[in-house]
Amino acid sequence: MILEQLRASSDVKQLPAAQLPELCNEIRRKILATVTKNGGHLGSSMGVVELTVALHRVYDFPTDRLFLDTGHQCYPHKLLTGRFDRFATLRQKGGLSGFPNKDESPYDLMTSGHAGTAISMALGACLGDALAGAKKKTVAVVGDASIVSGMSLEALNSAGHLDRDLLIILNDNEQSIGRTVGALSRVLSKVRLSKLYSGAKHAMEKLEELVARIPGIGKGVEKSVHELADHLRHVIAPGKIMDALGFRYFGIYDGHDLGGMVEVLQAMHEQPGVKLLHVLTVKGKGVKGCEEDPLALHGAKPGDSFILECDSACKVDKVDVEAPPAAKKPGAAAKVEFSRVFTDTLLAEAAADPRICAITAGMPDGTGLRTFSERYPDRFFNVGIAEQHGVAFASGLTIGGRKPVCAIYSTFMQRGFDQVFHEVALQRNPVVLMMSHGGLAGDDGQTHHGLFDIAYLRTIPGVVLLAPRDGAELEAMVRFALRHDGPIALRYPKAATSAPGRAIAPIELGRAEVVREGEEIALVGYGVMSETALEAAQLLEATGQRCTVVNARFARPLDEQLFGRLLADHRLVVTLEEGAIAGGFGSALLELASRLDGVHARVRCLGIPDRFIEHGARAELLAELGLNATGVRDAILGFMRETALFGTAAG
Amino acid sequence: MILEQLRASSDVKQLPAAQLPELCNEIRRKILATVTKNGGHLGSSMGVVELTVALHRVYDFPTDRLFLDTGHQCYPHKLLTGRFDRFATLRQKGGLSGFPNKDESPYDLMTSGHAGTAISMALGACLGDALAGAKKKTVAVVGDASIVSGMSLEALNSAGHLDRDLLIILNDNEQSIGRTVGALSRVLSKVRLSKLYSGAKHAMEKLEELVARIPGIGKGVEKSVHELADHLRHVIAPGKIMDALGFRYFGIYDGHDLGGMVEVLQAMHEQPGVKLLHVLTVKGKGVKGCEEDPLALHGAKPGDSFILECDSACKVDKVDVEAPPAAKKPGAAAKVEFSRVFTDTLLAEAAADPRICAITAGMPDGTGLRTFSERYPDRFFNVGIAEQHGVAFASGLTIGGRKPVCAIYSTFMQRGFDQVFHEVALQRNPVVLMMSHGGLAGDDGQTHHGLFDIAYLRTIPGVVLLAPRDGAELEAMVRFALRHDGPIALRYPKAATSAPGRAIAPIELGRAEVVREGEEIALVGYGVMSETALEAAQLLEATGQRCTVVNARFARPLDEQLFGRLLADHRLVVTLEEGAIAGGFGSALLELASRLDGVHARVRCLGIPDRFIEHGARAELLAELGLNATGVRDAILGFMRETALFGTAAG
Repeated sequence: MILEQLRASSDVKQLPAAQLPELCNEIRRKILATVTKNGGHLGSSMGVVELTVALHRVYDFPTDRLFLDTGHQCYPHKLLTGRFDRFATLRQKGGLSGFPNKDESPYDLMTSGHAGTAISMALGACLGDALAGAKKKTVAVVGDASIVSGMSLEALNSAGHLDRDLLIILNDNEQSIGRTVGALSRVLSKVRLSKLYSGAKHAMEKLEELVARIPGIGKGVEKSVHELADHLRHVIAPGKIMDALGFRYFGIYDGHDLGGMVEVLQAMHEQPGVKLLHVLTVKGKGVKGCEEDPLALHGAKPGDSFILECDSACKVDKVDVEAPPAAKKPGAAAKVEFSRVFTDTLLAEAAADPRICAITAGMPDGTGLRTFSERYPDRFFNVGIAEQHGVAFASGLTIGGRKPVCAIYSTFMQRGFDQVFHEVALQRNPVVLMMSHGGLAGDDGQTHHGLFDIAYLRTIPGVVLLAPRDGAELEAMVRFALRHDGPIALRYPKAATSAPGRAIAPIELGRAEVVREGEEIALVGYGVMSETALEAAQLLEATGQRCTVVNARFARPLDEQLFGRLLADHRLVVTLEEGAIAGGFGSALLELASRLDGVHARVRCLGIPDRFIEHGARAELLAELGLNATGVRDAILGFMRETALFGTAAG
Repeated sequence: MILEQLRASSDVKQLPAAQLPELCNEIRRKILATVTKNGGHLGSSMGVVELTVALHRVYDFPTDRLFLDTGHQCYPHKLLTGRFDRFATLRQKGGLSGFPNKDESPYDLMTSGHAGTAISMALGACLGDALAGAKKKTVAVVGDASIVSGMSLEALNSAGHLDRDLLIILNDNEQSIGRTVGALSRVLSKVRLSKLYSGAKHAMEKLEELVARIPGIGKGVEKSVHELADHLRHVIAPGKIMDALGFRYFGIYDGHDLGGMVEVLQAMHEQPGVKLLHVLTVKGKGVKGCEEDPLALHGAKPGDSFILECDSACKVDKVDVEAPPAAKKPGAAAKVEFSRVFTDTLLAEAAADPRICAITAGMPDGTGLRTFSERYPDRFFNVGIAEQHGVAFASGLTIGGRKPVCAIYSTFMQRGFDQVFHEVALQRNPVVLMMSHGGLAGDDGQTHHGLFDIAYLRTIPGVVLLAPRDGAELEAMVRFALRHDGPIALRYPKAATSAPGRAIAPIELGRAEVVREGEEIALVGYGVMSETALEAAQLLEATGQRCTVVNARFARPLDEQLFGRLLADHRLVVTLEEGAIAGGFGSALLELASRLDGVHARVRCLGIPDRFIEHGARAELLAELGLNATGVRDAILGFMRETALFGTAAG
């Protein structure tokens, strides 16, 4: 096996060229075998196998700089940079991250996961190198969905202006996450088809040929033809849009033609200035069923089964991978994904109210809006990876009398933070911000956990914040949010919950729910942590302590009356949240307590500590952070022991 | 006077066309007279007088929708929409806002101040209208600096794709805030010069003419010429870049030719689809010295003196405006702007350390970096209104071994929030984020106050947060930040302070400063509020209460040892910050107190309450919010009265 002998990028250069196709095959086999066990972003990585091998063949990483935008496509890069041995630990707790990670390898220059960041970082790095007088090459690999994010566009604009030695590889797989949308994508398809370019070029050549053939044709015509040719050279090809922006545009190349990739990268290596290399790849290349439906394989789950196919380019034999494990866990029947509850409720509401619209920023599947998009195509807007625009656009829709639901992962809402402030909150427009992945996102790790939304939204005036404890509450809360006349943000984790059906007390603005009455100690959960609070309280029963349990429902406005009573009647109030403690829900309760009279309780906050949290299964991470029922019980027992609250002092 | 008789947009339509130039003159006179008294964004508004009159002449606002991007240019619009009478209150507390404000008038569809938001909002509104079956026209007016922000680019991309009836007016004054930067601006200049377009068009026409003149020219040539003409029609003009993006591009028009503007807008009014109308205007049009140096007049201060000039287009006689008031206040000699201290320190440090770079996002003057840009042009990067890219680019520079200082207003840093998380904090890269306007920004109002940075940065792990109490501390803190090996964010208000010179205790990571020792009550100030805390303590001395005063210096990490002692030794600890209480500095202290043992003190937090704060002079706003010395004193006296802390219960 070639792959297992490679320890560094430089080893790729030592291989005989004839071995490279087999190296590609080995990479595909290894990725497939691992992803079918661990889950992962199969399609993206399969699409860049040849490109990655060619990059390592031509450039001297990590002396030269490689930035992989977003990072879904990093598996081949990891396999070529000394991480083959550990690759089986991919996306497992303590194992390799599913994204580039600077703590893993000097070949990863940044820890990433959010889209559209590579060009800015690469531009900064290469300018820094230039100022330092260092002769390094810098390469950024960016997908076609990512390059149209505002951040990429800002960076492209800046790159064209600064004109440093930077290679931007547009990895164009015509699919990306969700349907690629937007006018720039249309331009890209035009470039793909090369109609305008080849058409005009052809016409020009024919004209020149004809003019050359006509003896004695007027000097004026000849001059005009040359003038025209001159102008054409500057403006005719759509790729020249890029030229106009200050790039040298090179395209389109077949990203699966390994020899061709090596050749063109060698040429790029020698070219000064900012270069845009446009490469066509197929997402999921080489995997049966993947090429045809790459979207389905953007995120593969453990146990998904795929067949690696013979392919004229990569000549891989059929590989049988392990059969998937038994599909369903026992007793899992009543469970349903939060995102499914959201979608079902939204669909039901949308059927009754034609004003309801849904917006997503490149995540129709991750947010669960696929069905909505099919049923109500006119009321569905996938703006692409453009959270800033998505949030503001939703606010604009309210001016036109719509009821927009803007569904964006918690961590990606960070991109729309200023828009939540400026376009939504300040305007008091009734936008429903629906944040999935609010909490620990699991295998995707630190860039995908949604841990900060409570804090960053809580500081902006006028945004109602709420979170459901289970499916029944989410259903009711979606309905509540759609009827709320102002900005409102709902968060829920990427997790399964009990299916709706349970009878619940009506959702009222700023009203919490007492789940059970107890004494001395009150546990206040926000969102799903209310369930954990209840479980912990049940465990504490065994120690003779009957705790009060409150489901906060709202992080803003807080139920001042209820919490006031709680703080007056109890000795210890413990808040629980699946979010950063710094500025989070517990912090809000502390602020309330500091304002109120008659507070006797000590408040302690449980949540995510002040550090980045690695990848791992959500349950595993929660356990490690002490945020499962036993962890919470132990923490409370600890609080009882360490302070003089119980047994001795004041009441 | 025509202007004072106008009550609504529709009145503009009733005026005889011959009166319009005089209307423009009146608008200019009124704006100039007001701005010389109150200060304001003179240049932008002067540049769009004719455009605004033409818009109100052609469109039926507020039935039709008008979005003015950012909003600096809104004065003529305000004067034409029933706000003439109140115009003298511009930017004064309780008076008209200097930006569009939806609470002021139904003609203002959004309250704005941040750049690049109009196209998204307009697109949302017109799509909402289309879904509702409402026949309304929507117009967005966007400046050339604003249209290259990532948010605008995302919106343009989306607009081209959705193809609704939307007119985007590119108000191109070739200047904008700071120097317009970036590749797209270069494209715009190309369009301005129209070289490619007119050149190629000319060549084509000449060719066609010549071909037509040659009898018996081959059919092939003729066909080729026509084919070519066909291609040219599609791709030749740089404006056609916009066409390729799905817009109908119309340009370039003289924005000061009133009749021309009315005509072209009438044509636009009838055109379906997304239209980009490119209008050239002169910032500060009609004001002597302003046209030549519009940057200086972007923000005019009260008392600035200008002369309105004769102008062939607007035929305004010279207007003498009031002489400026006495330039300096008595006793103001030792005061200096925080931004000046920052700049001076940075310049001194940069002279000694060639690795230091400075980045701004379109605000070389507002951030005080003008001199740096002149002295170190190679180390200065104005990325334009592109905070996302700016923050990430700064982080990239650290990979190239640079020491970047990224200077962005607190409120605009919200645009770079995800980049602070993903590109800076997660990478642990030593970027210095220098946030001016951290606090109440004064006359510019709610969109420019920087009230949330403490909360939104405090929740992200690993970013050190600090704020100086005065000039001497800012100097020391800038030096400290440049030597800190990790992400660090410094905030200071848009205010004057004592010039450096005072001997101060060295800045140490996470160490607060005890300003004076007292008992029972401790006042803890963050940043400039430390000074207010000291003043309030001096006032409280009169009541017989000698308070401890602490200058926190750091909001993260907090000085746990010192605050632990404070919380143990005092009965009341009051935090003071010029920022939102929700999630802010006080909240951090509450979190600390909730974790510590031996806390006896009650903690109360003073800061900005949970609502948006209108415009007004900073001192005036601080007084109203109870955040000046007397307000703080009164609050503390109130705390002492309302609780049982003093006189009776526990210790």
